[in-house]
Amino acid sequence: MSAREFGSDSPGTTARLIVSGKDRPGIVSAVSGALQNAGANIVSLDQYSTDPEGGRFFQRTVFHVDDLSAALPGLERELTEKLTEQLGVEFALRPVDQLKRVAIFASKSDHCLLELLWRHRRGDLQMEVAMVVSNHEDLRTEVEQFGIEYHYVPADPNDRSAAERKHLELLDGKVDFVVLARYMQIITEDFLREVGVPVINIHHSFLPAFIGAGPYAKAKERGVKLIGATAHYVTEELDEGPIIEQDVIRVTHAYSAADLQRRGAYVERQVLARAVEWHLEDRVMRDGNSTVVFR
Amino acid sequence: MSAREFGSDSPGTTARLIVSGKDRPGIVSAVSGALQNAGANIVSLDQYSTDPEGGRFFQRTVFHVDDLSAALPGLERELTEKLTEQLGVEFALRPVDQLKRVAIFASKSDHCLLELLWRHRRGDLQMEVAMVVSNHEDLRTEVEQFGIEYHYVPADPNDRSAAERKHLELLDGKVDFVVLARYMQIITEDFLREVGVPVINIHHSFLPAFIGAGPYAKAKERGVKLIGATAHYVTEELDEGPIIEQDVIRVTHAYSAADLQRRGAYVERQVLARAVEWHLEDRVMRDGNSTVVFR
Amino acid sequence: MSAREFGSDSPGTTARLIVSGKDRPGIVSAVSGALQNAGANIVSLDQYSTDPEGGRFFQRTVFHVDDLSAALPGLERELTEKLTEQLGVEFALRPVDQLKRVAIFASKSDHCLLELLWRHRRGDLQMEVAMVVSNHEDLRTEVEQFGIEYHYVPADPNDRSAAERKHLELLDGKVDFVVLARYMQIITEDFLREVGVPVINIHHSFLPAFIGAGPYAKAKERGVKLIGATAHYVTEELDEGPIIEQDVIRVTHAYSAADLQRRGAYVERQVLARAVEWHLEDRVMRDGNSTVVFR
Amino acid sequence: MSAREFGSDSPGTTARLIVSGKDRPGIVSAVSGALQNAGANIVSLDQYSTDPEGGRFFQRTVFHVDDLSAALPGLERELTEKLTEQLGVEFALRPVDQLKRVAIFASKSDHCLLELLWRHRRGDLQMEVAMVVSNHEDLRTEVEQFGIEYHYVPADPNDRSAAERKHLELLDGKVDFVVLARYMQIITEDFLREVGVPVINIHHSFLPAFIGAGPYAKAKERGVKLIGATAHYVTEELDEGPIIEQDVIRVTHAYSAADLQRRGAYVERQVLARAVEWHLEDRVMRDGNSTVVFR
Repeated sequence: MSAREFGSDSPGTTARLIVSGKDRPGIVSAVSGALQNAGANIVSLDQYSTDPEGGRFFQRTVFHVDDLSAALPGLERELTEKLTEQLGVEFALRPVDQLKRVAIFASKSDHCLLELLWRHRRGDLQMEVAMVVSNHEDLRTEVEQFGIEYHYVPADPNDRSAAERKHLELLDGKVDFVVLARYMQIITEDFLREVGVPVINIHHSFLPAFIGAGPYAKAKERGVKLIGATAHYVTEELDEGPIIEQDVIRVTHAYSAADLQRRGAYVERQVLARAVEWHLEDRVMRDGNSTVVFR
Repeated sequence: MSAREFGSDSPGTTARLIVSGKDRPGIVSAVSGALQNAGANIVSLDQYSTDPEGGRFFQRTVFHVDDLSAALPGLERELTEKLTEQLGVEFALRPVDQLKRVAIFASKSDHCLLELLWRHRRGDLQMEVAMVVSNHEDLRTEVEQFGIEYHYVPADPNDRSAAERKHLELLDGKVDFVVLARYMQIITEDFLREVGVPVINIHHSFLPAFIGAGPYAKAKERGVKLIGATAHYVTEELDEGPIIEQDVIRVTHAYSAADLQRRGAYVERQVLARAVEWHLEDRVMRDGNSTVVFR
Repeated sequence: MSAREFGSDSPGTTARLIVSGKDRPGIVSAVSGALQNAGANIVSLDQYSTDPEGGRFFQRTVFHVDDLSAALPGLERELTEKLTEQLGVEFALRPVDQLKRVAIFASKSDHCLLELLWRHRRGDLQMEVAMVVSNHEDLRTEVEQFGIEYHYVPADPNDRSAAERKHLELLDGKVDFVVLARYMQIITEDFLREVGVPVINIHHSFLPAFIGAGPYAKAKERGVKLIGATAHYVTEELDEGPIIEQDVIRVTHAYSAADLQRRGAYVERQVLARAVEWHLEDRVMRDGNSTVVFR
Repeated sequence: MSAREFGSDSPGTTARLIVSGKDRPGIVSAVSGALQNAGANIVSLDQYSTDPEGGRFFQRTVFHVDDLSAALPGLERELTEKLTEQLGVEFALRPVDQLKRVAIFASKSDHCLLELLWRHRRGDLQMEVAMVVSNHEDLRTEVEQFGIEYHYVPADPNDRSAAERKHLELLDGKVDFVVLARYMQIITEDFLREVGVPVINIHHSFLPAFIGAGPYAKAKERGVKLIGATAHYVTEELDEGPIIEQDVIRVTHAYSAADLQRRGAYVERQVLARAVEWHLEDRVMRDGNSTVVFR
């Protein structure tokens, strides 16, 4: 979030360490010992345990070290020995300079897609946009003006397999996660299994209210006073994956369903952008069908 | 909302006129003509039509007239002739000094009940609290310290009819509306039909998410990032009545279901208090299963 | 706000009537009589009086009439006679199809400018963008991609008069209002007097906190927990003009002044866009150094 | 915040460790080593450094240990040696069962005082209310109904010294912090120096907007669209102490200054209650004239 967390003051010096697993004594001590041995200074540290006796442990540390590339191999070795082998918990070490690569899927609506591209251009989203994929040509010009590849893959509603094969070819080895920025096609279990990276979706309601299609029409019919949006990881269960972020805005009786949709777009793009930002910064950790978010 | 709307500067001078019905030309003109004939000055006016051609019309006017009691009979006569007979729309004239009378139902939780009693005592809710009814004795002392009648009516979960007969006896002719302030018993269709006044409920979730019992446990399980509360008029369909007001607060992974319940109480009492305030001020008008709220 | 308010269902049928002036009996009656004589159906009506006895009166009405261009001259005549001549209050009649024309001034920051252009392109801001004026060339490509004229007028900090003469030439007769979308130059009293149309500014703080330059640095120093933005009409007193809209977002100790500025941009662009939308829809009426906003 | 943080599942097992001082390598390692040696399990840990090279370090840890009273002396010894003596940073060890004692000062307004007493009674504020002190008798009955001592100390506006001597006598050794819950008298530098414990105040505006007396009247005059409240530690500079929490609510042109004050009370009591809760849980750490708040 801050300049220091991105190491933008001094490139090649800052990394994040993410640890998760079954909670047991010694994890914190092992981490702090290893970081001290590596000569690292901790910028920030967040830690949470669902239950200190037998619960699940989550930790996010940002640290500085003068020569990161020299320090990483030794640190990795020590953490593997202490965390993986002795304590049985997982860890990941990520230099902040090593940007995650994303493919953004969209259809005809531009609001979520443009928000991500615009925040990326101004340096607010530290990622590499590998490509935009769409089942329409509508947004090509906009996207290419950002200097980003645009791939048109038509969707056959009766047969998802041809499009998905094409998607998997395009993505193969090129991305670390996928964002569905109002991509209005079904994602199959097969695709999720094959793609092998996290997929983030924005749903245009405050889940679990108004699951499924047409949430704004349903919201109008129900007469709600707030409408919302939900960013979540995609799982096999439609609209049921782990929630990353949600927000709402106030509406009134005077709004038609079309008005709700138009206003809803403003909250959708903010919620999705925040979720992507937190995912990029390794702030979001999956905990079963929930998430731990260190904001 | 403001002192002038309550006529508190000059008692006996201020009233509200509420008009609703099938929209047709001439309603506004009839209203303003009648008010002018009565020598009334309009303080505020809100009007909404779901469709100016054949839709439903809603209007709320607050007006001052030097001698309200002298002016009301003539105004009532003229409006009956012009609005009811000629235009076929309904109206209600309410001097702001003529307070609505309420019965508040509660169980063991005090947060919604005390919020209403406290706001009433400080003059924020312009109503007369006729009584508090509860299926427990727990809150008697608290309520009686406010100088308000407390009626204990035990609940037999297998037979609602005895308690409801007792409720109807207590309420008979004494109240203009009922508030369920976390009253944890089922309200039957029979009771709703017999009681004959609006009943406002507070539901401890952002409806329609988490309909039914245990919404905080469900919210924890689903891993939502916001929890909410919904105040609505009670209809025969459980949790499906017209929504008056909703709000949410932000929560995190670190909250247990018990924490969510504790925090949720803070938003519940605010949402219910706002709904009651707007109901008292004739700001809420039912439109099928929705509401028009002139805030 | 809604489709019906914009007459988008049936072009050439919808207009807004704005009335303001010293409150006195008969205004509402005169308006509703004139609208009825014109065969108009009222879509919505909002009215407010600072004091029904001798206060200031504000009214906004949206109405439909089958043949607006045929009806307007007679309506204008009747309102002039009744409102202007007999009651001494001002009015304005505006067909919703008759779009307001705007010039947007910007410097190097793109966030407020692009938000306005993007909302305009998707049909959310019903206006005609006559031009963008900037004291830098940085944003030319972005703006021209929207098909909008871009005028570069360099700023001489020691002599505003040359640039302002150029501005007045460019604007002459072409715009109905001006928006300063993070335009980082002083606006002189001379310019305001000469330009003769409303000027809307976005200030990057919750006014009146942090008046003047560098509000994010001041906010960091003061350790505030919320930062905000304020859209206001520009008057001769710097940062003191009538406020149209304000909003805030939550921040933490972990944000540097640069982080506050980056995050602040998200609330600035939303606040400015809402203020422009309300100005376009004649929802904002000046009341001395305050505003009445019918949302 | 959660049950586990309060050790309510298993009394005598949970404590908080707060560390702050000049950042330098080895602090985290020293803490985690000492906790491991004590057989402690960490429930949650938050850490922040204003700059990992020469900045200020802040850490809050909640931990469980089966027999806390047996473990504390050794832990205290080890931390004193490693943190205080070797690294020169400060620490505090606080069993969560050891409640902080508070004196609440009030005048005539009850909203902030009652919110604190009510949250305390329902178990949401883990503190011991030693006494309420007021310069009026108005709130005595309310307070005594909660079973809490009420001390009336009249205020002589021309001579604060008599009242303050009395205050200091009442407080002497009995409280760990003081809350000014809309106490409308000046607090002198002498009192602050003598009392020797933190003093929390609620200011009825979004500081630094509307510093000083009469903020709601000033807010009405300025025509703001949001009003707020600020809880802060009291220092010698009036309204300039470190901010703990702030929040705002939306208002409109229709609110009089009295309406703003009435509505403002709702946000004041929430902001103050949150600030007190966080202070009780050792979530707030002073950093010069700012605060670090681990929420």
